[in-house]
Amino acid sequence: MTTTYKNVYLKETSTIAGNYEANGPLKSYYDKTYTKDLYFGETSWEHAEIKLLKDSISLLLKKSKLKENDVDLLISGDLQNQIASSDYASREFNIPFLGIYNACATSSEGIIIASTFIDSKQAKNCIVSTVSHNTAAEKQYRNPTEYGTPKPETATFTVTGSASILLTSEKTDIRIESATIGKTIDKGTKDVNHMGAVMAPAAADTIYRHLQDLNRSPDYYDLILTGDLGKYGKEILINYLKKVYQLDISSNYDDCGTIIYDTDKQPVLAGGSGPACSALVNYSYVYRLMKEKKLKRVLIVPTGALFSPTMFFQKESLPAIAHAVSLEVVEK
Amino acid sequence: MTTTYKNVYLKETSTIAGNYEANGPLKSYYDKTYTKDLYFGETSWEHAEIKLLKDSISLLLKKSKLKENDVDLLISGDLQNQIASSDYASREFNIPFLGIYNACATSSEGIIIASTFIDSKQAKNCIVSTVSHNTAAEKQYRNPTEYGTPKPETATFTVTGSASILLTSEKTDIRIESATIGKTIDKGTKDVNHMGAVMAPAAADTIYRHLQDLNRSPDYYDLILTGDLGKYGKEILINYLKKVYQLDISSNYDDCGTIIYDTDKQPVLAGGSGPACSALVNYSYVYRLMKEKKLKRVLIVPTGALFSPTMFFQKESLPAIAHAVSLEVVEK
Repeated sequence: MTTTYKNVYLKETSTIAGNYEANGPLKSYYDKTYTKDLYFGETSWEHAEIKLLKDSISLLLKKSKLKENDVDLLISGDLQNQIASSDYASREFNIPFLGIYNACATSSEGIIIASTFIDSKQAKNCIVSTVSHNTAAEKQYRNPTEYGTPKPETATFTVTGSASILLTSEKTDIRIESATIGKTIDKGTKDVNHMGAVMAPAAADTIYRHLQDLNRSPDYYDLILTGDLGKYGKEILINYLKKVYQLDISSNYDDCGTIIYDTDKQPVLAGGSGPACSALVNYSYVYRLMKEKKLKRVLIVPTGALFSPTMFFQKESLPAIAHAVSLEVVEK
Repeated sequence: MTTTYKNVYLKETSTIAGNYEANGPLKSYYDKTYTKDLYFGETSWEHAEIKLLKDSISLLLKKSKLKENDVDLLISGDLQNQIASSDYASREFNIPFLGIYNACATSSEGIIIASTFIDSKQAKNCIVSTVSHNTAAEKQYRNPTEYGTPKPETATFTVTGSASILLTSEKTDIRIESATIGKTIDKGTKDVNHMGAVMAPAAADTIYRHLQDLNRSPDYYDLILTGDLGKYGKEILINYLKKVYQLDISSNYDDCGTIIYDTDKQPVLAGGSGPACSALVNYSYVYRLMKEKKLKRVLIVPTGALFSPTMFFQKESLPAIAHAVSLEVVEK
């Protein structure tokens, strides 16, 4: 399903990152970084994740000079069971709350829902947030990091960070131009250590449908930026789109999982993942390049693997999804 | 946040229930029941839950004579970690998917999001689904049922069932008239065996704001129906609304958790819970009474406790939320 918006604008973003991210190529783009450890003064990884999310929402309110009462809606999701980080962060804010979950595609799901509320004039200001925390995610999805379980090169590294975006009906320099809601795609892959391969077909389906529905070619965009396929998944997507859809995106395509880290120098295997990965890249780096008009049309395509450890242990394959959002500099 | 809709209609529902529900007061209202066991031919409780959800979506498509391509959007959520039931059911349908999570308030969250897509003319037909499964939920949230852990009288009993609703822009006899999105409310309660007490303040806040925002008194509605507070939570809500908000809803109020079971005769403690509880009651019993024009204005207020077992083990209190949706018979 592809939809276009008339009056949805991006007003402000907030980005908070952990130490691996602060040591990566985008370090100068984040609003705030925590570099001492991954606890941030809390007593558990989960509470550290909640703190990150609360911080990013508070910072967004501060940066955009809004009070809680000025915001109609907070939309948030994360990787914790029962999206606990979003649940517990939301209780701190006097703002109506909708919890969402599409794994690492959560940020674009939230942007699409918020944009619909704003475009239909039901809401004026919406905050869309997400968060992920490396050691909290490892503990829940795989093994506690302390176990030292080895991983193959195709595995990705969950980003520690939180990113929020304020969407509004008030005119700004950047608007949400259109979006395509993804379908759940499952090609039968069962390798939890190769999420790039799991998610590439979902990204391909969404990118193809987006371009078809709006009668656009890939070069309509200055940049097409997938969620977190990582360095191997990125190549799979390029080849898959060529082979299955006869679509060449190689000249203006990149992946947030390979932008957020220096995969040659940092110990992050195939690159970054987690819902905060694409949100951090999009709301810091991409946002700044668009504000500086170095990028004018960007298609962000956060990708998510919709599995659970329980389903994996029951020998299930791994479904995936990707939602595309077109961001556009408003020409005066 | 309260919003009114101009052109959102309820076209069809589907309801599938397990054996406790089939032995309850609403047995004649469900489309389909599974009474043999709780496996439904599957090999795990989780796969049984996925089957229930797939069944209810397929049945809804059949009852409403729609093909997958006719449906713009599938919105679904459930109690499984990473909403796995919705993820795995969604891969079976060629319909764009948005995953949501607000625990047992998931159904009204979905109705509100779908209504916004329809009211803004971005979508014509949306399916909103949810599911819960007693033994899958017990295993994940508390202890496997086989352990025989005793519970206090205030505990609720997770409903086994799945319910889906088709919302559309095409005029029918019942419309979605307005809705109020809830805020996350946490009064510091920590008793996971008394969810009625945890959720009542959230229901009260949402009901109060809904009536205030639309300048209505409780008797505007033929029935105000909360999600799943159970028999003790129901009394708490009535008293809480009287004491804190000077609002008396006692003459036209009931709770889905006490309607779905005969709490005097069935071994269900304080009543039903789980996202399927309110959805089953609303989409079978309430829907039929509205079609027969025995109820003309109904405010459904599904309630959810936004905690996770991890947060409970870390000694956290339990946040809750409630979203209200006003259903109205269309006067010719």
